[in-house]
Amino acid sequence: MGRASSIVSFSLTLLILFHGYTAQQWPNECQLDQLNALEPSQVIQSEGGRIEVWDHHAPQLRCSGFAFERFVIEPQGLYLPTFMNAGKLTFVVHGTGLMGRVVPGCAETFIESPVFGESQGQSQGQGFRDMHQKVEHLRCGDTIATPSGVAQWFYNNGNEPLILVAAADLANNQNQLDRNLRPVLIAGNNPQGQEWLQGRQQQKQNNIFTGFAPEILAQAFKINVETAQQLQSHQDNRGNIVKVKGPFGVIRPPLRRGQGGQQPQEKANGLEETLCTMRCTENLDDPSDADVYKPSLGYISTLNSYNLPILRLLRLSALRGSIRNNAMVLPQWNVNANSALYVTNGKAHIQMVNDNGDRVFDQEISNGQLLVVPQGFSVMKRATSEQFQWIEFKTNENAQVNSLAGRTSVMTGLPLEVITNGFQISPQDAKRVKFSTMETTLTHSSGPMSYGRPRV
Amino acid sequence: MGRASSIVSFSLTLLILFHGYTAQQWPNECQLDQLNALEPSQVIQSEGGRIEVWDHHAPQLRCSGFAFERFVIEPQGLYLPTFMNAGKLTFVVHGTGLMGRVVPGCAETFIESPVFGESQGQSQGQGFRDMHQKVEHLRCGDTIATPSGVAQWFYNNGNEPLILVAAADLANNQNQLDRNLRPVLIAGNNPQGQEWLQGRQQQKQNNIFTGFAPEILAQAFKINVETAQQLQSHQDNRGNIVKVKGPFGVIRPPLRRGQGGQQPQEKANGLEETLCTMRCTENLDDPSDADVYKPSLGYISTLNSYNLPILRLLRLSALRGSIRNNAMVLPQWNVNANSALYVTNGKAHIQMVNDNGDRVFDQEISNGQLLVVPQGFSVMKRATSEQFQWIEFKTNENAQVNSLAGRTSVMTGLPLEVITNGFQISPQDAKRVKFSTMETTLTHSSGPMSYGRPRV
Amino acid sequence: MGRASSIVSFSLTLLILFHGYTAQQWPNECQLDQLNALEPSQVIQSEGGRIEVWDHHAPQLRCSGFAFERFVIEPQGLYLPTFMNAGKLTFVVHGTGLMGRVVPGCAETFIESPVFGESQGQSQGQGFRDMHQKVEHLRCGDTIATPSGVAQWFYNNGNEPLILVAAADLANNQNQLDRNLRPVLIAGNNPQGQEWLQGRQQQKQNNIFTGFAPEILAQAFKINVETAQQLQSHQDNRGNIVKVKGPFGVIRPPLRRGQGGQQPQEKANGLEETLCTMRCTENLDDPSDADVYKPSLGYISTLNSYNLPILRLLRLSALRGSIRNNAMVLPQWNVNANSALYVTNGKAHIQMVNDNGDRVFDQEISNGQLLVVPQGFSVMKRATSEQFQWIEFKTNENAQVNSLAGRTSVMTGLPLEVITNGFQISPQDAKRVKFSTMETTLTHSSGPMSYGRPRV
Repeated sequence: MGRASSIVSFSLTLLILFHGYTAQQWPNECQLDQLNALEPSQVIQSEGGRIEVWDHHAPQLRCSGFAFERFVIEPQGLYLPTFMNAGKLTFVVHGTGLMGRVVPGCAETFIESPVFGESQGQSQGQGFRDMHQKVEHLRCGDTIATPSGVAQWFYNNGNEPLILVAAADLANNQNQLDRNLRPVLIAGNNPQGQEWLQGRQQQKQNNIFTGFAPEILAQAFKINVETAQQLQSHQDNRGNIVKVKGPFGVIRPPLRRGQGGQQPQEKANGLEETLCTMRCTENLDDPSDADVYKPSLGYISTLNSYNLPILRLLRLSALRGSIRNNAMVLPQWNVNANSALYVTNGKAHIQMVNDNGDRVFDQEISNGQLLVVPQGFSVMKRATSEQFQWIEFKTNENAQVNSLAGRTSVMTGLPLEVITNGFQISPQDAKRVKFSTMETTLTHSSGPMSYGRPRV
Repeated sequence: MGRASSIVSFSLTLLILFHGYTAQQWPNECQLDQLNALEPSQVIQSEGGRIEVWDHHAPQLRCSGFAFERFVIEPQGLYLPTFMNAGKLTFVVHGTGLMGRVVPGCAETFIESPVFGESQGQSQGQGFRDMHQKVEHLRCGDTIATPSGVAQWFYNNGNEPLILVAAADLANNQNQLDRNLRPVLIAGNNPQGQEWLQGRQQQKQNNIFTGFAPEILAQAFKINVETAQQLQSHQDNRGNIVKVKGPFGVIRPPLRRGQGGQQPQEKANGLEETLCTMRCTENLDDPSDADVYKPSLGYISTLNSYNLPILRLLRLSALRGSIRNNAMVLPQWNVNANSALYVTNGKAHIQMVNDNGDRVFDQEISNGQLLVVPQGFSVMKRATSEQFQWIEFKTNENAQVNSLAGRTSVMTGLPLEVITNGFQISPQDAKRVKFSTMETTLTHSSGPMSYGRPRV
Repeated sequence: MGRASSIVSFSLTLLILFHGYTAQQWPNECQLDQLNALEPSQVIQSEGGRIEVWDHHAPQLRCSGFAFERFVIEPQGLYLPTFMNAGKLTFVVHGTGLMGRVVPGCAETFIESPVFGESQGQSQGQGFRDMHQKVEHLRCGDTIATPSGVAQWFYNNGNEPLILVAAADLANNQNQLDRNLRPVLIAGNNPQGQEWLQGRQQQKQNNIFTGFAPEILAQAFKINVETAQQLQSHQDNRGNIVKVKGPFGVIRPPLRRGQGGQQPQEKANGLEETLCTMRCTENLDDPSDADVYKPSLGYISTLNSYNLPILRLLRLSALRGSIRNNAMVLPQWNVNANSALYVTNGKAHIQMVNDNGDRVFDQEISNGQLLVVPQGFSVMKRATSEQFQWIEFKTNENAQVNSLAGRTSVMTGLPLEVITNGFQISPQDAKRVKFSTMETTLTHSSGPMSYGRPRV
């Protein structure tokens, strides 16, 4: 009996081992047979808001190299300066705010003017003027490029929650560590630990001052040891987003009047000569900048290294889409990138087909859900609510798509003979396949359809 | 007894586990002690030809990142549009044909002229004119660069089989999925499945239309559901290469007369301004373009990003060699690339030495065989038939080799003193080592030699 | 009993397997909780010196992709031509010497002049003139960039040991093999084997001639088979660094007088048009070229692709630091690179903090020790001997650091309000944190401090 069971045990072991061995040698990470709309796996609560983190070990995220986070910053909430081990793109889903980044080696170009400072109560001392690096106003649709190692903070100066989503690419060269998201805190902490990292689940994450000896900090900053200890925030449990009491007096240019929060200083800066003045933010919600626009259907805007050169460094780009109830984005595939699609508003029916011709996704996704579209997988989107809006992050500075149908599609580019022979259809039908849909990206979709059915 | 056997089981388990652990942490993929000439591992039969696929899990292919395929397209065979998850180079080994690619976003620049169309019977309807993207004539020696995600088709318009070999680099950034070859079919199918992919062996591979709901296709293409169902090719078992019945009437420029299939339109295009007009094909079989040429020995031609700029994007280059019976390619190593050598004609004796100084290959290879030369491995080739011809694909847009012997070799570049001291030979011998062989790449090899002997 | 124990065995197995599975899927290579100052793991003795190799499987080296070696070449020792599978930077720690590299395809530009040759006894034959590629003089502080596949030799023409340290980046694209250091020997051998490679421990490493058949070498070099056999060095056990008997007569330009070994020919060459004339060496020990300089504290010099363009190809850069007893390098982190810090002189107290805010290193390191600073880890250096000198290699052609304290630091770039709210300190304290330390990189450190204490 003992012998029998141990033989079973041994065989099972070998079986599993053999499987493990082959999987290890030839990982099939991207052989995705079933995709899901993903929700965050960890919610990190803070005094002034919360950070929601998707588990980047989920097969579709692991395959595509993405790490994904959502920040919900309450009014007067301040997301404390943090940097990442990877380049990332952040999109403003909701609300307004201020954002500052500290680029290494660049000068403090925002300097308090003495008269303004004193009269507005922004100055904390007599005759003292603060100076710091650039601060920008944020509004819905802003897309922010942040290189690895650059510390960034956000402040919600509005009356509604400021909601941001951020996609980091762990697989490109900006990240020179392993394929894990590693946020590093300059201030604040994370008492709950990082659930997505092995061995960090029960461990409080501290800011980087905590690891240094207070005497060293005192010498480095030429401050006394007590202040140094306060930088370590040992007794602080407010998390990484804190609540600001009273006014938040950072120096920033005024918003242009009557334009609802546009950023004139961005557009006016034609000189992007150095890394210090390089433009890093672009708004994707202005239909007048749309790349594809049809009044009755919606619009699509793209952001790539041609309109935001810093994306060449980050090897990321973005696409913003907004379509109405009767609109469909024609089936298409990513040519040279993976993409992460996040729904910012409404609902849509999405059908996706993998490299084997299998349907791997056929569901409705809605506000707040995330879906990965791997390179070469074909995808169709169809709005199922009044409005469907999404942001798509792509792992290439100039990501391209190839449409299956429509005027610039692969079918239109093929000779008629290839279509008639390939699909065994008549020349008349082939002509219809090629030329019936004259739109390029968006088309009308005539009413409801069943979906979520078992795959054929 | 039970106890004893379970202890044995446990120890064995640990042993294997430990081995697995170290192998996993420090994969020695490129510690190749024995190389083989590789043959295809799967033959996918189709109505109009066959596709032969090398198993990219074979140690030398896995180490170098290559996936390799051979296409044999019978007369009137049409390889249906397909795209890959990786950039690739295709070489025309035999026959003539037509090739078309559909580059996303580019216009249909080949337009049927009404008079010609009607009179030549190429038009399928009254007054209808087809238009599609560029179609190119192919002949022996043509080397075609294809980025990831770009659909490509081939048609054999000759009387002999059209034979193509293609190398894709799974390891560079064009592929953003896992290190598996993932062909995606626009039309056709593969009833045999993909034997080289775990879990896809017994599974029929379908075209991408199959995964979509017919109603969605009908709406996207504005066709009826019956036509949409025909795009899904459910009843079709012809495979991915089909036989064309009757004439194949695609629009293409005429071949220049009296030049045996040269491509004048390629050479005339000096404006390679956009991705749409970028040149992607170059012929490597014209000795007048050779980089190394000796009438009595043979020639060598190279293709890199200087003469075909799209290779910068693909990070691939190629070398074509053709040598006679008495010729030897002097021992050399790849400086900054791996290469995959495919024999297109004849036989050669090849000797290869790895980084440890061990002989890892010492055999004759012949027509149709594949051999990988990893970076830093030294290799000598010697023709053993009337003619030896090969094509070599390299994983760098500007691959370099370093010769051991000859006028531009490492030995010639070293001071005499380094050679006399390094090898303990006399200055006279060292002089001979440096200067006796004045050729650069090719030299005479005086008659037969034994090989395939056990290694020293 | 048997049943029970086998169930235990099975459960244990599953447990370990599960652990192995997760570790394999999501390697946490860079979750470093404890760093060490690293010493070489293998010393390879040769006739004319020794090569000391660090085990690149050590967690910090594996995470950062570095392979590290130290060469100690005795007077009249000749390190025989060798090339690597990766790009590397070499730093001259001690001594003087000559260095030659053989760049593939470049001409022999150093040609013996007949009169000089004969009269100085450098010519080995009557009327014969040697010619070879460029030979350079080396002195302390020289930093040499060597691409993969390029053979390099060193000769010690001084009276003291010539000590070199070299860092290769196994993780970037210059290496197209697996992540193992693979030196390939043109001459010499390694009788002890390569302990850092699985299965090569007991195996003698030979030069690449050894693997070829002597008849093939005879034909390739047009020499007789006896000389060919001597190239294989079967009876040679001198290793890879040999002792030169008598004068070492290579052609080289004279040293400029009265300048202690400076390289005038380097600076004079303004035309770096081709890979053949591209400058590959730069001296980092001249304080007049320093990037940060304070007479009382020390200096820091950097080498990146702006001052040595070949580094763009290698994706490596370097930093040389030299500080006095009372100096501290302010806490900083690597923004876009990993770095390997090697101590060339003296001692320092180093404190390092990881991405979780944990102190992972808090020790004194001294002459000859190596420490890896992963991307995003904060590090403070403080000299604890009269002089502390180090060389730091970085895995980015333009590596950037971000300081925690000082005039160009992240704290100075943040608005006062962010600091007061983030750390719950008064505006007065925040002002001190921002503005007390006006230095940028180096500051005074007032006397001894305890360290090596258990972490907080």
